Amino acid sequence: MSVERDRLVELRREFHRHPEPGWREFWTTAKIVSEVERIGVDELHVGRDALADERLAVPDKDELEVWMDRAREAGADPDVLDELSGGWTGAVAVVHQGDGPTVGVRVDIDGLPREESTDERHEPAREGFRSETGAMHACGHDAHATIGLGVLESVKESDFSGTFKLFFQPAEEIIGGGKPMADSGHLDDVDYLFAIHIGLDYPTGEIIGGIDDFLAVTQFYTTFEGHPGHAGARPEEGRNAVQAMATAIGNLYGIERHSEGESRVNAGRVGGGTATNIIPEEAFIHGEVRGETTDIRDYTFRRAKQVFEGAAISHDCSADVTIEGEAPSAESDEELVESIHDAARAHPDVERATRRGSIGGSEDATFLMQRVQQHGGLATYACIGTDHPGGHHTSTFDVDEDSLTLGVDVLTEAIVEASKTRP
Amino acid sequence: MSVERDRLVELRREFHRHPEPGWREFWTTAKIVSEVERIGVDELHVGRDALADERLAVPDKDELEVWMDRAREAGADPDVLDELSGGWTGAVAVVHQGDGPTVGVRVDIDGLPREESTDERHEPAREGFRSETGAMHACGHDAHATIGLGVLESVKESDFSGTFKLFFQPAEEIIGGGKPMADSGHLDDVDYLFAIHIGLDYPTGEIIGGIDDFLAVTQFYTTFEGHPGHAGARPEEGRNAVQAMATAIGNLYGIERHSEGESRVNAGRVGGGTATNIIPEEAFIHGEVRGETTDIRDYTFRRAKQVFEGAAISHDCSADVTIEGEAPSAESDEELVESIHDAARAHPDVERATRRGSIGGSEDATFLMQRVQQHGGLATYACIGTDHPGGHHTSTFDVDEDSLTLGVDVLTEAIVEASKTRP
Amino acid sequence: MSVERDRLVELRREFHRHPEPGWREFWTTAKIVSEVERIGVDELHVGRDALADERLAVPDKDELEVWMDRAREAGADPDVLDELSGGWTGAVAVVHQGDGPTVGVRVDIDGLPREESTDERHEPAREGFRSETGAMHACGHDAHATIGLGVLESVKESDFSGTFKLFFQPAEEIIGGGKPMADSGHLDDVDYLFAIHIGLDYPTGEIIGGIDDFLAVTQFYTTFEGHPGHAGARPEEGRNAVQAMATAIGNLYGIERHSEGESRVNAGRVGGGTATNIIPEEAFIHGEVRGETTDIRDYTFRRAKQVFEGAAISHDCSADVTIEGEAPSAESDEELVESIHDAARAHPDVERATRRGSIGGSEDATFLMQRVQQHGGLATYACIGTDHPGGHHTSTFDVDEDSLTLGVDVLTEAIVEASKTRP
Amino acid sequence: MSVERDRLVELRREFHRHPEPGWREFWTTAKIVSEVERIGVDELHVGRDALADERLAVPDKDELEVWMDRAREAGADPDVLDELSGGWTGAVAVVHQGDGPTVGVRVDIDGLPREESTDERHEPAREGFRSETGAMHACGHDAHATIGLGVLESVKESDFSGTFKLFFQPAEEIIGGGKPMADSGHLDDVDYLFAIHIGLDYPTGEIIGGIDDFLAVTQFYTTFEGHPGHAGARPEEGRNAVQAMATAIGNLYGIERHSEGESRVNAGRVGGGTATNIIPEEAFIHGEVRGETTDIRDYTFRRAKQVFEGAAISHDCSADVTIEGEAPSAESDEELVESIHDAARAHPDVERATRRGSIGGSEDATFLMQRVQQHGGLATYACIGTDHPGGHHTSTFDVDEDSLTLGVDVLTEAIVEASKTRP
Repeated sequence: MSVERDRLVELRREFHRHPEPGWREFWTTAKIVSEVERIGVDELHVGRDALADERLAVPDKDELEVWMDRAREAGADPDVLDELSGGWTGAVAVVHQGDGPTVGVRVDIDGLPREESTDERHEPAREGFRSETGAMHACGHDAHATIGLGVLESVKESDFSGTFKLFFQPAEEIIGGGKPMADSGHLDDVDYLFAIHIGLDYPTGEIIGGIDDFLAVTQFYTTFEGHPGHAGARPEEGRNAVQAMATAIGNLYGIERHSEGESRVNAGRVGGGTATNIIPEEAFIHGEVRGETTDIRDYTFRRAKQVFEGAAISHDCSADVTIEGEAPSAESDEELVESIHDAARAHPDVERATRRGSIGGSEDATFLMQRVQQHGGLATYACIGTDHPGGHHTSTFDVDEDSLTLGVDVLTEAIVEASKTRP
Repeated sequence: MSVERDRLVELRREFHRHPEPGWREFWTTAKIVSEVERIGVDELHVGRDALADERLAVPDKDELEVWMDRAREAGADPDVLDELSGGWTGAVAVVHQGDGPTVGVRVDIDGLPREESTDERHEPAREGFRSETGAMHACGHDAHATIGLGVLESVKESDFSGTFKLFFQPAEEIIGGGKPMADSGHLDDVDYLFAIHIGLDYPTGEIIGGIDDFLAVTQFYTTFEGHPGHAGARPEEGRNAVQAMATAIGNLYGIERHSEGESRVNAGRVGGGTATNIIPEEAFIHGEVRGETTDIRDYTFRRAKQVFEGAAISHDCSADVTIEGEAPSAESDEELVESIHDAARAHPDVERATRRGSIGGSEDATFLMQRVQQHGGLATYACIGTDHPGGHHTSTFDVDEDSLTLGVDVLTEAIVEASKTRP
Repeated sequence: MSVERDRLVELRREFHRHPEPGWREFWTTAKIVSEVERIGVDELHVGRDALADERLAVPDKDELEVWMDRAREAGADPDVLDELSGGWTGAVAVVHQGDGPTVGVRVDIDGLPREESTDERHEPAREGFRSETGAMHACGHDAHATIGLGVLESVKESDFSGTFKLFFQPAEEIIGGGKPMADSGHLDDVDYLFAIHIGLDYPTGEIIGGIDDFLAVTQFYTTFEGHPGHAGARPEEGRNAVQAMATAIGNLYGIERHSEGESRVNAGRVGGGTATNIIPEEAFIHGEVRGETTDIRDYTFRRAKQVFEGAAISHDCSADVTIEGEAPSAESDEELVESIHDAARAHPDVERATRRGSIGGSEDATFLMQRVQQHGGLATYACIGTDHPGGHHTSTFDVDEDSLTLGVDVLTEAIVEASKTRP
Repeated sequence: MSVERDRLVELRREFHRHPEPGWREFWTTAKIVSEVERIGVDELHVGRDALADERLAVPDKDELEVWMDRAREAGADPDVLDELSGGWTGAVAVVHQGDGPTVGVRVDIDGLPREESTDERHEPAREGFRSETGAMHACGHDAHATIGLGVLESVKESDFSGTFKLFFQPAEEIIGGGKPMADSGHLDDVDYLFAIHIGLDYPTGEIIGGIDDFLAVTQFYTTFEGHPGHAGARPEEGRNAVQAMATAIGNLYGIERHSEGESRVNAGRVGGGTATNIIPEEAFIHGEVRGETTDIRDYTFRRAKQVFEGAAISHDCSADVTIEGEAPSAESDEELVESIHDAARAHPDVERATRRGSIGGSEDATFLMQRVQQHGGLATYACIGTDHPGGHHTSTFDVDEDSLTLGVDVLTEAIVEASKTRP
């Protein structure tokens, strides 16, 4: 039931050439829509129809406009672009094919705001499909979109019986798209959900049935506001926002560990002030907290807010905290882990079938998994190994295109087998 | 009109042998009362009669009891001790001797809570008048009390005409005695007030007419209260008072300087916690802030309180601030500076007569000076130089006993001359 | 094979009445020696003979003397006390009883430096066996010593075949005794080691085969040394040890978490400075770091040392770090966990037999366990549940004396069964 | 001897329309050269000829190029621009006019990198001479250059006898131009140096003979370099440059005050990190320290370097400190203060002639003053009051153009009188 390898490679390279950051996947969504329509589905929900009303981390209008223009110039279908206006990217495709359970697959489609390597040893540079947008598919979401489309085609040609839903989720990297897609209603009748990721330091030929250790995460943007003063002539008139920020950074990392599991804090990007001779009146911390459970994350964030408030008071400033994005923790269900595992073991090109794996990071697929599980369904987050020369999020990240076919095959097999069970 | 040098030396050594910290000058006050009565005065106000009702930095009952017992054992007059009960130490002696202005002298009488050196090169150790109480006269208040008594005797024998008041102020080192003595009413009719200090890095033979740069000071005791937790098993249950304290220390020293003058902060004594494996639930900072003006001191203390509150909030603790003692800044009046200067220049043993000097520290004599100045009188804070081998407050501090006579002579001369003016 | 319940209760209460902190268990060791001799053993190693030469966290001479005197007054055998001089407490008793493996039991015997409750609801207070020493058995080591003696008696009367070694380890609470006892040589031929603890929030009637999550721990004592200066007159002469300490506290808690497991840090007891008006020249942090593995603990401690050095340099001070005590992490071996589990299930009064448990804390029994495991033997750390009204280390901690018999029975049964296997 | 008011106003508005930041005063210098040549002088030293080889705070090539192009487009003389290539801006004009002392005047010519107000109440906006470059003359250096040229013309027409040197100093705002101009050799034979500033919160009609309280200043740029790590998956791999920066900020402000005079510290502009989920590998502090004396500034900077080093070590990072600019403290000489004072009192439009004033800030004119004083000459820093609606360095700063004539008149008078004395 396999899709042509060449077709998958070609698709993936097209996506790779046009990476777009979260909520700006205009060209990408239009391309997906065109491919989905080519394959043919029973329902196709695009943009606002694929998402709940409340979104997080949406860029401002000017930024959206820049990427919309770029997509238009790159030849995206203007009618589809109209539907995406305002950053309503992403899509849900649905196929009804006989009686049976509802099986979902979730792939994410956004790129990262970073330059891609021009090094000749970097295949996209050498082979001419390096990013043309300034952003980069440095985490393999080009491969995810491709595998999703490949699975759609394969499932349609298979003896799958039931309803198949394919979720093209936007804005994963900024933890923005998972929640509104989970809340869209499209997940509520899903019996089995397969979320997938490529790579994660597992080599080509290895398939992992389920990832377990997602850390719940909250990304925040905290601003401190004080009052300027001339550093030489009137220091006492200043209320120093940079001192407040520094106090907060120190105490943020010092939040007590939690005995029930891992926690993390990071002040990932900070800044403040304008000139050496002015007591700084503004400063910010763009950061995140994580927890092995959602409760531990919440404990840590509650403490972080006290840290911000206390730091502001210490320096006669005010602090304002905005949540930019968040995702809960999640666990993969045993039944679906086994179903991937069985499909992997049965495939001749799979060299290693592993049941459980670990990433120690966060993912907003957990919103979709949680939604399905809360409605009585099962979910797993499977990994398709791939040899990747550079690490995830680095400028030389690339995937081994052999893993595209492998991913489509194993996933399709697991889906078809799942459709034979009754939840 | 000189008092015998031998008598002064003997007296000073008796005081030196019995140092008592602030509000515990039981033996010292009783000794002063006995000497004053020997000399003979018209009025003698002791304890409660010498002080306003509100005192600062009074030790607890047990501590007072220990020193009361020690004074009793050392042979202090039990009737006087009764009057001092509760730590009401200090005295005011008054002589009426003809018409004329009211002239005051203020000396302080308390010791410091530190061990005295046993080094043979330290004269009190070698000559057998080293402290027997565990405390130490490491700032020359033994000499001050002695000079005060010497001046009293000399003034009585002189052609002084007017009212002479001698203030034996307790609890200077803990900034506790100045305010209640200033508020006692005894200062309100003083026309000219001479406060004195010995040493201050000026050598024997030098006399300074007035000190100008007193820093206003506030001493505080801040406690942080959190909640304990087992550092291994339940760190998240702890609310860490030591972290709050550390945050406060960092930010305390970081309070912005003031453009209108000097400021100081110090976390002089700090502590917290009980055991390595318990998240600390209690901590304290015993410290002070100073300012070149009372306003700058107040600015700094206002900021310090924000620092304490912010640090507590940062670590989910509470902070409580108690003011232990305080003193304003003050300036010496030109007329009295000149009067000391004239007396010094006229004395054959004075090698250097200096008008104005500097100490860069704080003193609660400023309360008495301020009171007199607010009532239209004049005040100065004069210094009697003395060679002192160890620095003030160190275990080898000592005075050159030659400066005792010099101090009595110059001060008496200035007082007698002042009595000839009409304010 | 049971020992009389009354005898155990009486013994436990005697120990309870005479708690002694680490390396000061003079009366306790003498009492143990006397009981062991009454029961009769083949070898008895006391003090220096039970320990390697290098000990940690030994109190100073004066402190040892105080407790030695107290032990003498309480009637301890002077000959035994002589052997313990210098704080060489603890003992190892050995019984040879036919062929078979060498089986060890480790109990700890020290108390905690805290007052015991006088509340009538606290049974030791009500029944008259409250501590008479000022210290307290607030962690059940009185029960451990008692169970150890009970097991010795039971094993001797049983059909145990092999060598039985009973380790009475001193100084567990200060992480001082585990290492020198582990290095004594007495552990090197042990095939099976059972370390035990009572309580740990498990109720009477529950027995846990093995505890797994010991955190490796290092206790440190860090001193900062600067230079004093008058806070008003010469602040720039000071090199502020309290600022260095505060900087270190902030950064200590801010050491990055480790992705491979839990870590902990605590500045449990801190202090510095002498007076509000002196820039503090000395300060200290008495604290600890822990890790889920010994490597994580070492990573954290390595970072802590950088924190101390950096803080000292920041304030022109010096820092000196002393390791006071340390213990590795450890895991209980499956075979012995099962052996306790089997014995527990077979006992009629055991209501709940649990295989694995958790404490989230540290224990220097891990030194002995590690030593045995490194020599090819097996070890477990079993827990005898007991209803305890107050939490461990609190003033109302107490044990349910019913658990004494239960502990002796289950442990003896496991030991006898173990002696029938061949390692 | 007055220059036409209209001519001065016209000139000042031309300068105002073309502000250029430090070392980028290409159009400005060319304009000055053209005006000086029109007036006629005996020597004119431009660019490299006006400066020593070593300069501080020079922008990079690209930045210089941008401003050079802008100057060319604005019609600056290409031949002069060639001489200024590489940012060698500024000029020294010399007139020999009979026997007599060498008298110098120093004015600075650079603008600030900030937008100018477009508010109609702001006269340059209303009258059409608002900045066209994006930078702004927000500190009156346009008026300084104008007054300099006016004085040159007036002195030539006067009975001045001696050598007159006019210093057009670049790059004052970035503390970059003072030192190389002071070291150029042109100052070494100056007998009397008048540096001037307009405004400083003194109103039109007030002239101040000399400013005294310049704080010595050092501007620094400190970078912290660590190592990145994924904040979720591998925090322990990170060496956190933002934590190092925060520790340094806290301790920087906490450097002990100095008893001999004022000090200042400021972390005026700070930043670090790239993304919320990456442990930050880089951070910086762009700041300054000041002191009432050069020694106090040096003490504070020495301590600041320890703070940076200690913070880096605390977080396993490295720190690198670059001095960007510095200026010593300075005092105005009594003789020249009097000379300005006399000229001011004699002028009919001067409403208030003040001898001494204060700014509480820093200035690199102090380098030139120090040079002259070290070679036996005298120097003062005089202030020409002007009503300025917005504060210095704000977007609505403006000068009252009446003060231009006043400045030229008083300065010329003082110069002419000075030329009659013999140093």
